Amino acid sequence: MRQITSTQNPQVKAWKKLQTRKYRQQSGQFLVEGHHLVEEALKQAGRVEELLLVEGQPVPAGSAGVALTQISPEVMKAIADTETPQGVAAICKMQEEATVLASGQRFLLLDAVQDPGNLGTMIRTADAAGLDGVILGEGCVDPYNPKVLRSAQGSHFHLPLWHQPLPEAMAALARRGVPVFGSALRKAVPFQQIQAQPGFALIMGNEGSGVSDALLDQTQSNLFIPLYGQSESLNVAIAAGILLYHLRG
Amino acid sequence: MRQITSTQNPQVKAWKKLQTRKYRQQSGQFLVEGHHLVEEALKQAGRVEELLLVEGQPVPAGSAGVALTQISPEVMKAIADTETPQGVAAICKMQEEATVLASGQRFLLLDAVQDPGNLGTMIRTADAAGLDGVILGEGCVDPYNPKVLRSAQGSHFHLPLWHQPLPEAMAALARRGVPVFGSALRKAVPFQQIQAQPGFALIMGNEGSGVSDALLDQTQSNLFIPLYGQSESLNVAIAAGILLYHLRG
Repeated sequence: MRQITSTQNPQVKAWKKLQTRKYRQQSGQFLVEGHHLVEEALKQAGRVEELLLVEGQPVPAGSAGVALTQISPEVMKAIADTETPQGVAAICKMQEEATVLASGQRFLLLDAVQDPGNLGTMIRTADAAGLDGVILGEGCVDPYNPKVLRSAQGSHFHLPLWHQPLPEAMAALARRGVPVFGSALRKAVPFQQIQAQPGFALIMGNEGSGVSDALLDQTQSNLFIPLYGQSESLNVAIAAGILLYHLRG
Repeated sequence: MRQITSTQNPQVKAWKKLQTRKYRQQSGQFLVEGHHLVEEALKQAGRVEELLLVEGQPVPAGSAGVALTQISPEVMKAIADTETPQGVAAICKMQEEATVLASGQRFLLLDAVQDPGNLGTMIRTADAAGLDGVILGEGCVDPYNPKVLRSAQGSHFHLPLWHQPLPEAMAALARRGVPVFGSALRKAVPFQQIQAQPGFALIMGNEGSGVSDALLDQTQSNLFIPLYGQSESLNVAIAAGILLYHLRG
């Protein structure tokens, strides 16, 4: 087993660079921290490239055959995003695989979602609702950002997630007869008027500006959630939860 | 108009203490920051005790008759919770008024909700769903915490919110024939089996342990949201959104 105790080790510097989107994209890797996320990553064969354990931490279940490096608490602190890391982390491989678009029945499409917590929570909710995939259009925050990973609580490893221009994905779904619903505050129907669907794609949009008009023009129909009180809007992740569970039935 | 430019002014020290729960409770006051929250506070007559404006900021609409103090950017920075405050803040009066419990039809009851973002988002969602009140049981994070206020986006000023032991509130609702639903992962019915209700109360619980068993034993029935994928749970605020809009119909 490899051991790294110095924060000056070149490997530590490389891991640390995974805190930036640029280097994550270059390397095709991202880092997850903590027992729960590492366990979820290990359940998906071939996803973990290297397991990093602070001395004294037990080897997690499912790590047979995975490269293991023992690191010092100082090294963990240097590479982790959290203030008090749990002592276990994993270097994971990005795996953006769009083939399910040709066969799946339920999808969440995201247009320029900016808040990491919202994105992570929507990935988690899409997983809970049994969707077949999450498609990230232009302008979304990086899904491999540590805050997104924490909010999603392991759902990155449960369903396919990939980047694709949304008009392209929508055209592919339309060819297969999967209805695409936008979400909007104007020129839209109350969601309760739409029945549960055997298959569907739902588009959720940017926190400030919503789904772009260019996309809303290409949907089967656009839904809104009535506001019965005095609030001006719902949080986008809450709206996604309400609509996904309604459409799923 | 009063002017305060020094962060050493005793009044500034008093405002600064509103960052702590203890002093908020002692004084019965809390501070909101930023244009949107201040405007929402001003819409509710008698709620703002003092408006604080950095020099050069326009006086917000609805502030006629409200005590106004001009402060320096340094004073604003000292009393604000955000890194880059917007230049307007308001000292507001807590107003916990439970009389709607005797007449309202729809309530959200919260048992030991700990995360400020979750609490704020649930208050915002309760407002959107047109509920008549939000009742905070034991162990909830302080609703006047700045993070809760930000997440709720002004809904604190849109619907009554108060602290009350939940068994007491549940007994009062039961006497009026308002059905109380718990949310739970075990010994519960899928929420889709329950019809929309003309009146209801929904209990949401702690992020880790859920609604306490003692409360679940006293409900009309307990609901769960089926998990169709591999995620182990939903975020509590997402679950609240799905259940509130379902029960409302």
